[in-house]
Amino acid sequence: MKLNCDLGESFGSWTMGLDTEVMPHIDQANIAAGFHAGDPLVIRRTLLLAKEHGVTVGAHPAYPDLVGFGRRSMNCSREEIIAMIHYQVAALDGMAACANLQLRYVKPHGALYNDMMAKADVRMAILEALAEYHRPLALMLQATPEVDEHRHEADNAGVEVWFEAFADRCYDDDGKLLARNKPGAVHDRKKMLAQVQQLCIHGSVSSASGHTLAVAADTLCVHGDNLEAVQAIQDIRALVGQG
Amino acid sequence: MKLNCDLGESFGSWTMGLDTEVMPHIDQANIAAGFHAGDPLVIRRTLLLAKEHGVTVGAHPAYPDLVGFGRRSMNCSREEIIAMIHYQVAALDGMAACANLQLRYVKPHGALYNDMMAKADVRMAILEALAEYHRPLALMLQATPEVDEHRHEADNAGVEVWFEAFADRCYDDDGKLLARNKPGAVHDRKKMLAQVQQLCIHGSVSSASGHTLAVAADTLCVHGDNLEAVQAIQDIRALVGQG
Amino acid sequence: MKLNCDLGESFGSWTMGLDTEVMPHIDQANIAAGFHAGDPLVIRRTLLLAKEHGVTVGAHPAYPDLVGFGRRSMNCSREEIIAMIHYQVAALDGMAACANLQLRYVKPHGALYNDMMAKADVRMAILEALAEYHRPLALMLQATPEVDEHRHEADNAGVEVWFEAFADRCYDDDGKLLARNKPGAVHDRKKMLAQVQQLCIHGSVSSASGHTLAVAADTLCVHGDNLEAVQAIQDIRALVGQG
Amino acid sequence: MKLNCDLGESFGSWTMGLDTEVMPHIDQANIAAGFHAGDPLVIRRTLLLAKEHGVTVGAHPAYPDLVGFGRRSMNCSREEIIAMIHYQVAALDGMAACANLQLRYVKPHGALYNDMMAKADVRMAILEALAEYHRPLALMLQATPEVDEHRHEADNAGVEVWFEAFADRCYDDDGKLLARNKPGAVHDRKKMLAQVQQLCIHGSVSSASGHTLAVAADTLCVHGDNLEAVQAIQDIRALVGQG
Repeated sequence: MKLNCDLGESFGSWTMGLDTEVMPHIDQANIAAGFHAGDPLVIRRTLLLAKEHGVTVGAHPAYPDLVGFGRRSMNCSREEIIAMIHYQVAALDGMAACANLQLRYVKPHGALYNDMMAKADVRMAILEALAEYHRPLALMLQATPEVDEHRHEADNAGVEVWFEAFADRCYDDDGKLLARNKPGAVHDRKKMLAQVQQLCIHGSVSSASGHTLAVAADTLCVHGDNLEAVQAIQDIRALVGQG
Repeated sequence: MKLNCDLGESFGSWTMGLDTEVMPHIDQANIAAGFHAGDPLVIRRTLLLAKEHGVTVGAHPAYPDLVGFGRRSMNCSREEIIAMIHYQVAALDGMAACANLQLRYVKPHGALYNDMMAKADVRMAILEALAEYHRPLALMLQATPEVDEHRHEADNAGVEVWFEAFADRCYDDDGKLLARNKPGAVHDRKKMLAQVQQLCIHGSVSSASGHTLAVAADTLCVHGDNLEAVQAIQDIRALVGQG
Repeated sequence: MKLNCDLGESFGSWTMGLDTEVMPHIDQANIAAGFHAGDPLVIRRTLLLAKEHGVTVGAHPAYPDLVGFGRRSMNCSREEIIAMIHYQVAALDGMAACANLQLRYVKPHGALYNDMMAKADVRMAILEALAEYHRPLALMLQATPEVDEHRHEADNAGVEVWFEAFADRCYDDDGKLLARNKPGAVHDRKKMLAQVQQLCIHGSVSSASGHTLAVAADTLCVHGDNLEAVQAIQDIRALVGQG
Repeated sequence: MKLNCDLGESFGSWTMGLDTEVMPHIDQANIAAGFHAGDPLVIRRTLLLAKEHGVTVGAHPAYPDLVGFGRRSMNCSREEIIAMIHYQVAALDGMAACANLQLRYVKPHGALYNDMMAKADVRMAILEALAEYHRPLALMLQATPEVDEHRHEADNAGVEVWFEAFADRCYDDDGKLLARNKPGAVHDRKKMLAQVQQLCIHGSVSSASGHTLAVAADTLCVHGDNLEAVQAIQDIRALVGQG
């Protein structure tokens, strides 16, 4: 089981995330590409930090919405989505190569990620973008009960897929994440570690109502917003072993 | 003698330049990279248009200034310049590869171009950016009396350079372009063609005061703003032959 | 019957619309406020042009989406909508005052306009923004079969409303505009003038299927994209008389 | 002696400055206007916070450079500077009025402030912007040995001026701030308080070389970046008394 984390989300004079503290403990860095966060200097520094720690790098493209941090769904056309992904992924890809790193995958950010999971046309546009990209990159999406369907779609497009699960979020009976404003939506430390263990050993989670759901994940999404979060990453790391 | 032109300078719903009319007549397309003009969709379409006409593609990076169209000098640090060039060039480079094209060169835009010609530290930062880029790209700059010095600087950095001259602009005795607001700064059709001929045959121009200046250019910068400009490109094309 | 037109939609070096040709023929200028189009200089010049022709000025606020020209729906919160309207309206309001003009109304642009017509929560947020604004401004929205309901909502918020109809667009039986990609969606000159006449005399339109729909409009939305459009405005002006 | 502080410099999801901690201790809040920092929601919240503590509000306009935080000089024309100031000031002015506050002054930010102090043409453009604004607003600039000359320029333009001094920065013999990278450029707590006391009682500072310079200031610029800075503000507040 790998650990992935959104990084490089500072912008200009604004700092976000404890990238330096997080990087030593993760396997995959989802690096912001400039549309929701991450300016060229931040990207450059984040890539060098990933290199220093031998972390695999992925592009984290988003809708063009700095002020909304890419969290607001935008009604974009298929052609717009393909072009915006190509632009952001290519920028990361070339800058990674300048640092002697090879970009390996793409994880859409925020509202683009949510739209990918919820809307087939957005997911198809993203798969088409990766299929048309000039070299193979994997797509990271959420492990849900539709894993087989999503893998089938990706196979048809000729795109490798990686599935991620969430360590600290409670799942509902449909395999979706419980909305953040619902009670119990975010696990405490103990429940989080129990969920990680269950994901690693049994490939499942226990839903809010107590049902066991199969969740076949390749990687766990962790967060590095503050020192407590970094401590949680270290605990998860200890539990899953070196990725 | 090649012909190069700034293209892909539309943005979103705003159109600029007669790209479709210009592309068949030029050799090198300097394609805007998103910081002064050119959004991902415009870049994609411009690349496909270049491909259709077998035109060599270059990146046209700029200071981050959409509203000023990259024409206002910004006091950026060496590290900022390197990162902004890497980001823009990489975006173009990868998107060109998606269209089965290979990006070949970089021509800075507007104020970044002027600062490159006027300020050694900006020029050094740009050369450093290209030297650090993960594969070789040529740098296009203006053919001035400092051509040898600039070539020497580029050799030291291990960067190939291409020099351009201007077809329709009058030169002063220092080999600089006469400021646009000066009388006679922009040639009429007849003088433009005479200057092109002199550049091609003798590698020189006649300055405003009538002196002959050596101007050793590899390529001529032409403009495609309107139908008259496109006609001028066709006349120049006829004069210089197929590049 | 007044004529209103979206103006000031140039941005930096990009020009859009024939503002100079349009302004003499309209009553109300909906001026872009910087989020989808219109930079500070464009706003300033557009206000001076409106003043020269005695045209009433309104603010034309949009979602923050330059590259999408404000035409892509964005999932914004109520508080975000209120703040973005206050910011844009205040900018226009103060700049109008600098030109000795008084801003009179607000017409949301593009996707924000469409969302206002289609979604009650967006409409409520916009009404709340105007109710909280420090001085009264009218809200311009589309005259539909829900005119009475919308007027009631606005009365409750204490906001004056102006209703607009479209001269050149065909209506469906629900009083909505026929989608642009449908046959007959945009009227030719003759049908447009007939629709204007019917709107002025009878306060109604004939729908695509031939039904007569009551459309009680205070103002007609016209367009100034090209010379043909400007000619259409002049024809409508001649038909409706001086507003 | 008043205390002024740059506030409202968060942007979207990025937080900057301890506004909540700082506001109770200052007299004048310089509020970012959206071009270098401060989105509509941040502006709205900062205005409400200022109102809660009875703090006078000013606009803090900047060059349009989010990624550079307005700290990079941009070569803008007189007309561009006037328009960008009108736009930003009007946005703040109207939003302040929505919160039942009256905007009282303008303090340019970052590179625009530095250019105002160093370049007569930029200073003239800013004075012209305020002279043309539709109601009187004071301009805050640095108290230097050119105070009389600057006051004279402002009188000619009909603009009220407020002069500020810096509590924690060492002055050189020309009355400029010692560059931050020079030894002793930033005072420790003890020297800072001594400088504040000298400014309040004698209207002077002791330069790096030990000379006494007259510095006639109306207000002291303080900073609220971190908890130590907030403590420093409280110490200065105790020293100068209630403004």
